[in-house]
Amino acid sequence: MTNDFVLLNQPLSPLAPRVGQLTTTHGKILTPAFNPVATQATVKAISSAELEDLGVSTIIANSYHLLMRPGIDLIEELGGIHSFMSWMHPIATDSGGFQIFSLGHMLQVDDDRLTFKSHIDGSLHSLTPEEAIQNQERLGVDLMMSLDQCVPFTNEIEAVQMGVRRTTLWARRCREAWSGKAMLFGIIQGGVFPEEREKSAKELVAMDFPGYAIGGLSVGEPKQSMYATLDSSCELLPINKPRHLLGVGSPEDLLEAIARGVDLFDSALPTRIARNGSLFTPEGRINILNARFKNQSGPIYPGCDCVTCTNYSTSYLHHLFKTQELLSLRLASIHNLRFILRLLEEVRVAIRANEFNAYKEAFLQTYKPTDEQTRIAQKAKWASARRG
Amino acid sequence: MTNDFVLLNQPLSPLAPRVGQLTTTHGKILTPAFNPVATQATVKAISSAELEDLGVSTIIANSYHLLMRPGIDLIEELGGIHSFMSWMHPIATDSGGFQIFSLGHMLQVDDDRLTFKSHIDGSLHSLTPEEAIQNQERLGVDLMMSLDQCVPFTNEIEAVQMGVRRTTLWARRCREAWSGKAMLFGIIQGGVFPEEREKSAKELVAMDFPGYAIGGLSVGEPKQSMYATLDSSCELLPINKPRHLLGVGSPEDLLEAIARGVDLFDSALPTRIARNGSLFTPEGRINILNARFKNQSGPIYPGCDCVTCTNYSTSYLHHLFKTQELLSLRLASIHNLRFILRLLEEVRVAIRANEFNAYKEAFLQTYKPTDEQTRIAQKAKWASARRG
Repeated sequence: MTNDFVLLNQPLSPLAPRVGQLTTTHGKILTPAFNPVATQATVKAISSAELEDLGVSTIIANSYHLLMRPGIDLIEELGGIHSFMSWMHPIATDSGGFQIFSLGHMLQVDDDRLTFKSHIDGSLHSLTPEEAIQNQERLGVDLMMSLDQCVPFTNEIEAVQMGVRRTTLWARRCREAWSGKAMLFGIIQGGVFPEEREKSAKELVAMDFPGYAIGGLSVGEPKQSMYATLDSSCELLPINKPRHLLGVGSPEDLLEAIARGVDLFDSALPTRIARNGSLFTPEGRINILNARFKNQSGPIYPGCDCVTCTNYSTSYLHHLFKTQELLSLRLASIHNLRFILRLLEEVRVAIRANEFNAYKEAFLQTYKPTDEQTRIAQKAKWASARRG
Repeated sequence: MTNDFVLLNQPLSPLAPRVGQLTTTHGKILTPAFNPVATQATVKAISSAELEDLGVSTIIANSYHLLMRPGIDLIEELGGIHSFMSWMHPIATDSGGFQIFSLGHMLQVDDDRLTFKSHIDGSLHSLTPEEAIQNQERLGVDLMMSLDQCVPFTNEIEAVQMGVRRTTLWARRCREAWSGKAMLFGIIQGGVFPEEREKSAKELVAMDFPGYAIGGLSVGEPKQSMYATLDSSCELLPINKPRHLLGVGSPEDLLEAIARGVDLFDSALPTRIARNGSLFTPEGRINILNARFKNQSGPIYPGCDCVTCTNYSTSYLHHLFKTQELLSLRLASIHNLRFILRLLEEVRVAIRANEFNAYKEAFLQTYKPTDEQTRIAQKAKWASARRG
């Protein structure tokens, strides 16, 4: 049966870790699962065959970017996004709302639609909730998102309330426009205000979506706020429906969210930091450009099973980064994606063995997350380069 | 037996096409063979596993670049260039002379040595013929080049004569410094002057090198001069020794050189033009950015057996180039390398069947080479970007 979600353990509450199996037209996804980000129908520097080798079961593309280039018409005409990018496994898309708010040049937002200029050529576009659904359906994806209004991190409740109101309004229109073919996720907003998160969750749950996504996090708020907000978002969600936390991809955040019952994740973080030479290890991130790696003949860390570490030395990767060789970007991306995928493989085993808390504790005892300030500075630098 | 070259056909003259088998410590090379260029111990955008899939039997790295970064000491300490770059098949290196002349900031050249500044950090270096040999031997390569003085394309015979004299002098010192482990190729110079080419060839042949390389071509001279010069260079070479034409990689040049008895080639051209979106087809090069490829659902050309064409549509490749995605550079490089490798596979069959001339004629009847002016402009643009 397609578009089916089955839990493989018995979570004790809506805020407990779970293992599930999501069945789509293009295959099964074991959850918790991580979606590498294929913004423009390609995971940066990685081929489809490499995604399979990595153990990726699902990826997420972006319907705003694909609307801009090459256009929904073209992908539909060529048989859909799966054959377009030569990835025959599950594909999710975001509705494009977040990208239009963060990247596009917004001209007007009202209850009816978004009106904006393309960030590429300045051409005029608009998007209604119905069109957001049609675009994703025409791409032929397996999992799709309702159009939401994501409000940047703020302490002003009025802006957040406006976002929640509009997100609910649009979610209803999306739900009605939906043909039922792909799994549609309703997106919960509400900033860092527990009462707004609860309101949003309740309104969305009342519409009975096949799945729920949690948006508006990892947008600049402190980590502790994010975890508290997750509590208020997840608490009211039905246990038997999949939950996707949008835009989150650091190991510590994945574990905290899984602890609260999140099933699906997507984030450009693992590949974005990889291209800057920042590599995951069980002790935290390392910077491969550091001189101490110049003559390290072994893998990035002992026991890493990724294609990069099983074929190339740390010293060689250091050399490729030093000489700015293209292969560096791919090898680093493969390493970081594999780190995250393997983490989730281990997490799934731990949850089924009822040992998730011990696993999480052991992992976080050795893993030193990037400190808050560095993290915020890196994100700002990236966002500014992205807009520029 | 290693370092052995056996002809598999009976060429009728020193200027006739041949098929051979070169045996090295790291495997056999069927000739005519093309060496993808791994300047800094990586073929730009391509992994070692992909080189194997492409059918590559040998690659060429650059001992000048490796001397600069990461240094010969480091590669030697890590077990040699094969394990450093995870390529366990034959590897050739250039001596570095050409790169020092074209890229480095030359301070002094005399009969004793080259003195130059690094193009990376301006640090002071010098290189003697003996050191050029030691560097290549310490890298652990299978095929290596004597140090030569490559003179840019000129009609002034004095400069060319000086280059020939010094190349002979250095070849003798290289020959003496050589331990005998890898196959050493003596490089023939002489610009576009037939008498200088003959002089250089005679002097090198008298030293009895395991193989001979033809340098100083494809450096700005018209194609007809290049072909005529090849005649004068190859005519005096012993039939049973392998011949490497340095820096040549366009399909038409490969065929003309093979017709004159050349066995080995190397060139960055297939991968360099690929990164600009210029792709080989049996009709000539196409520019993938052209709008006519936007919705072409098939491969780049019918029957192409490369990994790119068997997995992705031309439309997708066009999209990747339009959106400047990293994967574009790899997929295009794979296509162009496979085109050249397949050409040489077919050439080897044709030569053994005594049908080389017919094959060459048929190929050149449909293949439209890039016109001379475009070619020179592209090369100048690239050289200037490379220095800048």
